[in-house]
Amino acid sequence: MIVTEFARNQWYVAAYGHEVGRRQLGRTVLNEPILLWRTEDGRAVAMADRCVHRRFPLSESPSHLVGDRVVCGYHGFTYGPDGVCVAVPAQQRIPRTARLRTYPVVEQDSFVWVWIGDREPGDTLPPRAPWLVSPDYATVCGMEPLNARYGLLVDNLLDLSHETYLHGGYIGTPEVAETPITTEVDEDAGIVYVSRHMDDAACPPFYAESTGIKGRITRWQDIEYHPPCLYLLHSRVAPVGSPPPAADGTDPHAFHVEVVYAITPSTENSTYDFWAVARDFALDDEKVSDFLRDSNRTVVLQDVAALDTLEQVLAREPDRYQELSVNIDTGGLAARRLLAKMAQAGAVRPEAAAR
Amino acid sequence: MIVTEFARNQWYVAAYGHEVGRRQLGRTVLNEPILLWRTEDGRAVAMADRCVHRRFPLSESPSHLVGDRVVCGYHGFTYGPDGVCVAVPAQQRIPRTARLRTYPVVEQDSFVWVWIGDREPGDTLPPRAPWLVSPDYATVCGMEPLNARYGLLVDNLLDLSHETYLHGGYIGTPEVAETPITTEVDEDAGIVYVSRHMDDAACPPFYAESTGIKGRITRWQDIEYHPPCLYLLHSRVAPVGSPPPAADGTDPHAFHVEVVYAITPSTENSTYDFWAVARDFALDDEKVSDFLRDSNRTVVLQDVAALDTLEQVLAREPDRYQELSVNIDTGGLAARRLLAKMAQAGAVRPEAAAR
Amino acid sequence: MIVTEFARNQWYVAAYGHEVGRRQLGRTVLNEPILLWRTEDGRAVAMADRCVHRRFPLSESPSHLVGDRVVCGYHGFTYGPDGVCVAVPAQQRIPRTARLRTYPVVEQDSFVWVWIGDREPGDTLPPRAPWLVSPDYATVCGMEPLNARYGLLVDNLLDLSHETYLHGGYIGTPEVAETPITTEVDEDAGIVYVSRHMDDAACPPFYAESTGIKGRITRWQDIEYHPPCLYLLHSRVAPVGSPPPAADGTDPHAFHVEVVYAITPSTENSTYDFWAVARDFALDDEKVSDFLRDSNRTVVLQDVAALDTLEQVLAREPDRYQELSVNIDTGGLAARRLLAKMAQAGAVRPEAAAR
Repeated sequence: MIVTEFARNQWYVAAYGHEVGRRQLGRTVLNEPILLWRTEDGRAVAMADRCVHRRFPLSESPSHLVGDRVVCGYHGFTYGPDGVCVAVPAQQRIPRTARLRTYPVVEQDSFVWVWIGDREPGDTLPPRAPWLVSPDYATVCGMEPLNARYGLLVDNLLDLSHETYLHGGYIGTPEVAETPITTEVDEDAGIVYVSRHMDDAACPPFYAESTGIKGRITRWQDIEYHPPCLYLLHSRVAPVGSPPPAADGTDPHAFHVEVVYAITPSTENSTYDFWAVARDFALDDEKVSDFLRDSNRTVVLQDVAALDTLEQVLAREPDRYQELSVNIDTGGLAARRLLAKMAQAGAVRPEAAAR
Repeated sequence: MIVTEFARNQWYVAAYGHEVGRRQLGRTVLNEPILLWRTEDGRAVAMADRCVHRRFPLSESPSHLVGDRVVCGYHGFTYGPDGVCVAVPAQQRIPRTARLRTYPVVEQDSFVWVWIGDREPGDTLPPRAPWLVSPDYATVCGMEPLNARYGLLVDNLLDLSHETYLHGGYIGTPEVAETPITTEVDEDAGIVYVSRHMDDAACPPFYAESTGIKGRITRWQDIEYHPPCLYLLHSRVAPVGSPPPAADGTDPHAFHVEVVYAITPSTENSTYDFWAVARDFALDDEKVSDFLRDSNRTVVLQDVAALDTLEQVLAREPDRYQELSVNIDTGGLAARRLLAKMAQAGAVRPEAAAR
Repeated sequence: MIVTEFARNQWYVAAYGHEVGRRQLGRTVLNEPILLWRTEDGRAVAMADRCVHRRFPLSESPSHLVGDRVVCGYHGFTYGPDGVCVAVPAQQRIPRTARLRTYPVVEQDSFVWVWIGDREPGDTLPPRAPWLVSPDYATVCGMEPLNARYGLLVDNLLDLSHETYLHGGYIGTPEVAETPITTEVDEDAGIVYVSRHMDDAACPPFYAESTGIKGRITRWQDIEYHPPCLYLLHSRVAPVGSPPPAADGTDPHAFHVEVVYAITPSTENSTYDFWAVARDFALDDEKVSDFLRDSNRTVVLQDVAALDTLEQVLAREPDRYQELSVNIDTGGLAARRLLAKMAQAGAVRPEAAAR
């Protein structure tokens, strides 16, 4: 069964840095309504998106920012970036309990990460996706909201055999579904690795158009999933017969694409699907950027359509519906297991969670 | 109270034969998602519309047919017409349990009937509506989905006094509501008969336009309901004063219309309303066909609007809301009783039903 | 917490008198579906909006009036203004229980009030809003349906500090939120009074445009809430420095606007928001009427948007979500207390309520 509990006390991507600015942004992460904005000196802030007075959303018009303060659009309760209420209508005294919960924020690799949980993050930092801000890579990105539980997106991304069927003509070719995978789990680090190396495969339009390769390719898909939120696909394509990577790790004869997903549960049946495609070639070629942005968005929207359909299907299934897992599912099953463990470890009393 | 339980271990119309072809068709019958398609040699097939792997609907794009096989559009699991899985991605071995439930199918009288139940149908065959494929009749037909429980459509069709009010100007005249009915129930065969013979009635546009009769008519409505699914209305109209049917059953002075409904429960609050109108006159007159198709569809859509409204009303009523039944309801009440008996007889343990 | 129980055995505004005529009007008040129509001699009638036969709504087409009778559009059951069924299809005998519940009606001050409850109203009469039909006032009015529980509208109207933020540029100025209120409760009469007198305030467009005042104003807001349904705002504006009202109550130097709301709960999360604005100046000036109608409707729609948003927020909150009340909330809190008391006093056994 798909994992649907949330793993609390973890970092989640709430937004891209470029989405957080001087207009408030509202996002719901693990059912918590979160207000994101940036102070005048550029710091990203995350706080509860509900006024303490009557629960009006601070992200909704006519709520607005005035300098480094958020003013509620209903009765004007006003808050600083630390969540403390600094103004109340028609009186000078401000109740001491007038304070919004704030969330630890880390801005890193183009993402705004927020910590969702009851404990403090301490030394725990979000996992890295450095390519997205590296000068050696050119990146396109986007986010598509999913009307499906996040476990369906985890399943989807851990088993790329679906590229052949769902994304044929874009990124899938017959070899993806035909080629067996190897799966490894680093239990201590909590990482799932899934690899599929195709020695001689058709080159799908996604790579043919962007790299200019005409013939068949060697295609490697090396997945590295850091549950709950970060998914990395190290993709290597090279014309068949090209030399392999050198012993020192350099690999000048191949094209490298780092496909990054952040899988952020919003509610029990909705998810933010952040996606980014970073390449180490044609860095300044806008046409390649446009092509990859359009292509990957199309592919993501094919996933969205399929997973939204599946969510509707599962919503009508009895509680313990039947699945049948085969070899291609080993990565997804390992991910489910780690997520269930994390959910259990991060679980808190409902009273605390409901705050 | 309206019957809302389903009568299992019965035949239901899932589609018209002409709807089932070389593209997959998905229908939900008694809450069971069913995939309908036709093999290359023309045989109609019905099977579970959910891939055994991750429940993706086989009726949804990009799932597709290849010869006599259905390929799931998500990961390519492939099935034969017997439901057996014949291909799985990235491995040769196919799990023995990879098999879709199939449904007994009878194609008859233009309908594709499926057997919904846990027992086998054995010698039980669906009831007949031979006019729909008879060379002595010309038929128009259609299907309208209803957002209402099937019991509301049973009620509606068993009590035609509503024609006067809901279908005035189309098929209703004052005499329908004014004329008492006679009701008979064949308990052994499980058939409800409701008859209303109007000796001298206005001719509604539905019959005036199609038959060319100018004056008043003798109008007979003889209902024969074979619960749960098949409803026949033997309709006879003739100018007032025309001779009655002969002793041998021939009736050359009257016009005969066989109005057939198949009432197929889809979910607890949705229903397929299949309707067909077969006439024994003006067989080759396309204008008459077009008129009857448009008129009957209009009448059915008036029912759809009223029953969808009623469903919304009943959904907000307390569990044991009040009804008041009168003489016109004897047919509907008899139908409810037979349906409740059938539902009880066909009931199975929930575990089995949920499969 | 907001009051969401209904106060039964009370008068509620179901419609404006001009809405009730020779076509049936359906309204749902405290979850009860009510049919409103006017007899040929002009009397407003309120009765259950469900046919006794199969629950078809008598307000829905093709149900219709014939003289002083309502004919059900499904099977023609026919009712007089006393709710008694007078015709049934295909039979002469009419069951004695074929009778619709009727509701006590008072037509007063442009409103059609209905009594919702299990006891009779006796001598209890609805509260008054005489300005709406007074020749000394000119009135504009409207009704906006709210997809929010009625308690949110009570909160909204009892605390006008929100005018500054939600209705800035229309009816709010900074002084409204800055000026403290005084609150009084008449426990015996069951009335909440909230007053805010601004001695020197900016004149918002709502009053500047309608009165022609150019400079700053003295602005009085005197609220008189008669729970559950009637809300009166006695609004007085005059140029700063104008003489106060005379000892005899006359006040020739000020402009007076009587803003009237009727707050009628429809379902647990929907409400009828009736609003009227009566002025004692520019009585025959259509431009002023048009301006005030447009302005107040805009203001009401700003409330509708905010309260519909809040309803969505509260629907997802845990049962005992947190609020923080301050001085401006004293009126709203008093109203909640009176409403809770009324709900308790009017409560009846669920069986009786469900009828």
